Amino acid sequence: MNDVRTERRVRGGGGAARRAERTAVSMDTAKFITRNIPNFEILNDEALEIIEWNADTVLEEIGVNFVENPAALQLWREAGADVRGERVHIPRGLARELCKTAPSTFTQHARNPERNVVIGGKGLVLAPVYGPPFVRDNEGGRRYATMEDFRNFVKLGYMSKWLHHSGGTVCEPTDVAVNKRHLDMLLAHMTLSDKPYMGSVTEPVRAEDSVTMSKILFGEDFVDQNTVMTSLININSPLTFDSTMMGALEVYAKHNQAAIISPFIVGGAMAPVTVAGTLTQVLAEVLAGVAYSQLIRKGAPVIFGAFVTSIDMNSGAPTFGTPEAAHITYGAGQLARRMGLPYRSGGAFCGSKLPDAQAAYETANSLNMALLAGVNFMLHACGWLEGGLVSSYEKFVLDADQLGTLHHLAQGVSMDENGQAMDAIREVGPGGHYLGCQHTQANFKSAFWRTDVLDYKPYETWEEEGARDSATLANQRVKKLLRDYQAPALDPGIAEALESYVAQRKASEPDAFG
Amino acid sequence: MNDVRTERRVRGGGGAARRAERTAVSMDTAKFITRNIPNFEILNDEALEIIEWNADTVLEEIGVNFVENPAALQLWREAGADVRGERVHIPRGLARELCKTAPSTFTQHARNPERNVVIGGKGLVLAPVYGPPFVRDNEGGRRYATMEDFRNFVKLGYMSKWLHHSGGTVCEPTDVAVNKRHLDMLLAHMTLSDKPYMGSVTEPVRAEDSVTMSKILFGEDFVDQNTVMTSLININSPLTFDSTMMGALEVYAKHNQAAIISPFIVGGAMAPVTVAGTLTQVLAEVLAGVAYSQLIRKGAPVIFGAFVTSIDMNSGAPTFGTPEAAHITYGAGQLARRMGLPYRSGGAFCGSKLPDAQAAYETANSLNMALLAGVNFMLHACGWLEGGLVSSYEKFVLDADQLGTLHHLAQGVSMDENGQAMDAIREVGPGGHYLGCQHTQANFKSAFWRTDVLDYKPYETWEEEGARDSATLANQRVKKLLRDYQAPALDPGIAEALESYVAQRKASEPDAFG
Repeated sequence: MNDVRTERRVRGGGGAARRAERTAVSMDTAKFITRNIPNFEILNDEALEIIEWNADTVLEEIGVNFVENPAALQLWREAGADVRGERVHIPRGLARELCKTAPSTFTQHARNPERNVVIGGKGLVLAPVYGPPFVRDNEGGRRYATMEDFRNFVKLGYMSKWLHHSGGTVCEPTDVAVNKRHLDMLLAHMTLSDKPYMGSVTEPVRAEDSVTMSKILFGEDFVDQNTVMTSLININSPLTFDSTMMGALEVYAKHNQAAIISPFIVGGAMAPVTVAGTLTQVLAEVLAGVAYSQLIRKGAPVIFGAFVTSIDMNSGAPTFGTPEAAHITYGAGQLARRMGLPYRSGGAFCGSKLPDAQAAYETANSLNMALLAGVNFMLHACGWLEGGLVSSYEKFVLDADQLGTLHHLAQGVSMDENGQAMDAIREVGPGGHYLGCQHTQANFKSAFWRTDVLDYKPYETWEEEGARDSATLANQRVKKLLRDYQAPALDPGIAEALESYVAQRKASEPDAFG
Repeated sequence: MNDVRTERRVRGGGGAARRAERTAVSMDTAKFITRNIPNFEILNDEALEIIEWNADTVLEEIGVNFVENPAALQLWREAGADVRGERVHIPRGLARELCKTAPSTFTQHARNPERNVVIGGKGLVLAPVYGPPFVRDNEGGRRYATMEDFRNFVKLGYMSKWLHHSGGTVCEPTDVAVNKRHLDMLLAHMTLSDKPYMGSVTEPVRAEDSVTMSKILFGEDFVDQNTVMTSLININSPLTFDSTMMGALEVYAKHNQAAIISPFIVGGAMAPVTVAGTLTQVLAEVLAGVAYSQLIRKGAPVIFGAFVTSIDMNSGAPTFGTPEAAHITYGAGQLARRMGLPYRSGGAFCGSKLPDAQAAYETANSLNMALLAGVNFMLHACGWLEGGLVSSYEKFVLDADQLGTLHHLAQGVSMDENGQAMDAIREVGPGGHYLGCQHTQANFKSAFWRTDVLDYKPYETWEEEGARDSATLANQRVKKLLRDYQAPALDPGIAEALESYVAQRKASEPDAFG
């Protein structure tokens, strides 16, 4: 490993590579969203104060478990918590106090600086689906995901105008050994895209690999001084912090790399069936997790996460795009803002097995609420199908297209003279038509969001062309994008160094599956 | 006509009928929504004041046309407007002053008093699609709508739990003469459903028929003293009030029956391409229309309407579920509330030809924004397809199911002791599971909204059952509902009187098509 890093430093910290990128032809990517609209505040101050009081009661009276992690227990003891066995009781107010050193916004750098994202404040950064073991497309149906699928999704993400982030496990490449697939995944993000990416969290050593490979890509000094990864640390709800996830968090926090501290909630299973009860538990868990990150390293960038679904009480199936999930997403956003932390929630969630009407209702419900809830980082913003078991090719491009609506919604309403359009109303007058008027001609290109995949054609044309549904149109767009894909330029020396690091690490241990 | 009305009065004003209905088995219908959540306010006060100032400028400087309607011009003259030809220039402030006599809320009565709706305030009343000349279902594809289709959609509306209103022209029964179909449509609403309905607006005489038939159903005195119809008066945007629509409005206002005064806007065609410009024109049109209704009869119930779509500048096609439509819908809601008027907007809008993912994205975008925009009366809340050209059987039940999410969203967050769920969190503790806990058992039936049509099944079961998509599931639900349909009880004398009125009116003139 040291050889690789040394070789890397000698070449000058990636400056040449970055110069090469800036001159290369690149895909058009929208800047991350900056909201010019208010957030939707579903809870009043009294409700928020009750939840905050209750969360502190949970931390003090019930406590949280840090499992198989004596070092964490020691840190908590030193910070003033009452530790009994693996149970950490955190005195009222302590966790919130510890959280104060976490930054309210941070920049995650991309290897192409134009793709840098600011996470927090009025921003919204969109990243693709994370984690599915299966993929689905129209021709092949549902099948185990492979590394080829993974690369395809990274390419689609790179080519998606409204996607700011390349994400992490866009699907699980099940044809690569469990202990090695993180290397191939990182290599794909680093070489096939120039958008920011996520690190591995499945073992602390894989988080170390993520840091090492990032140093090859960005330069060692750069990574020491800047955040180049945002990684997903799930809390084992209710109230449990396992050593694998905490181990990964420790690696990232030590290296000043960002982590999403995220309760994983299926309401009624991992949290109470009520909204206020779930918010209480989510807040307690985030307070404990973020406080712990700051015990590892004060100032380490973290995100208040909330992955929330409800449950179908008849079948036990998780359900998506439901009103209860919306309530929680709105409320958690308010709690995050009161803590001064960036907020992760929302996504293109659905329970449907196909990219059909159900999938789209549930997804649109989720995407709209996430925008208005003040979400700053939205994982799963496109491609999610079947409760997260499946990365769908067709849904990836359909969702990614819908993300454009969020950009336009967030712009708010222009009230300047052109926006007021009084001259247009005067010009056209009663009974007239605006299509030809000057104001329309001057504004029509930017006035309205336009889809890149949905059908706006006259009925007769649509029928002659085969009466295609959305999934069919999406399938054709997937093929076109993958056909047109061109990799962003990358310094060949860096590419080679990354590949040789991956090869060396793979050779250093036998394959492990499962 | 008089005979019928006399006969009707003799039987005692419908009391017997209403008693019969109350004892009959009836379908489960949710009460209209009362919001316990805030509205989403996209515009600040300064923006609202600019738009209000500009709207008054439009009315005074540009004016509005009342076409082929000398009586209206005379009323405007008497009210203080400057009338030149058919152009009415309304001095700043006059229209708003005249609007003040319109009620901020009103009750629309149904023949089953349990189905009465209050329109305005924090309420939201949901009514089905209105106007399509075509229908579509999975088997028959797209075809001209018939009276049989019309009756089917009224039955589906009656059986939809989340639909509070039977609507009006749920599809155009093209197999009935244009000058007679309103009679069959009204008869269907009155006999096949007991929910409130809309009157005919296509000619003033048809509005008169609507009033007469309502008197047969409710009793003459009852209709004189109460609002039993809410009808749709479209404004011919920009800034034009045609004599047919105004004639219908005059009939309804005189009889104290409600009218939605609704600009019909395709942004970029009938209004400026900008949001603030469109809001200005919408407000000017509503101010003029509502003021005119109050010139006809002070206190006549009216609704601030806004039917808004954007346009695809490449093809000229209207587009739905777009961010620009959302901005306008949010803003118009604020303007309506500042006028103290009930607000009609939103709907299950889409441009798609099929009930596919596109249809559902666009629809969910529209439904969610309408709830948060403070809409009080939502026409087209289910069944709308292909830009309103088609009433879709499958989409009707899919949309109607989604309307359940709006009911649950509007409930807001319960902060009582049960909602806080602290005992549940204590009982379960770190690492536990909530499914079996007392609090979950006590709440699970009402905790979460549940679909009646979408798929929540395990993958294997779903595949064994034929891997059905949403449209297929919806088709099966349509068939089941129509199979299970039972008409609500109605006094046979009233039914007979309605039928004989329809027969007599049909016999009184030759068929006219087109």
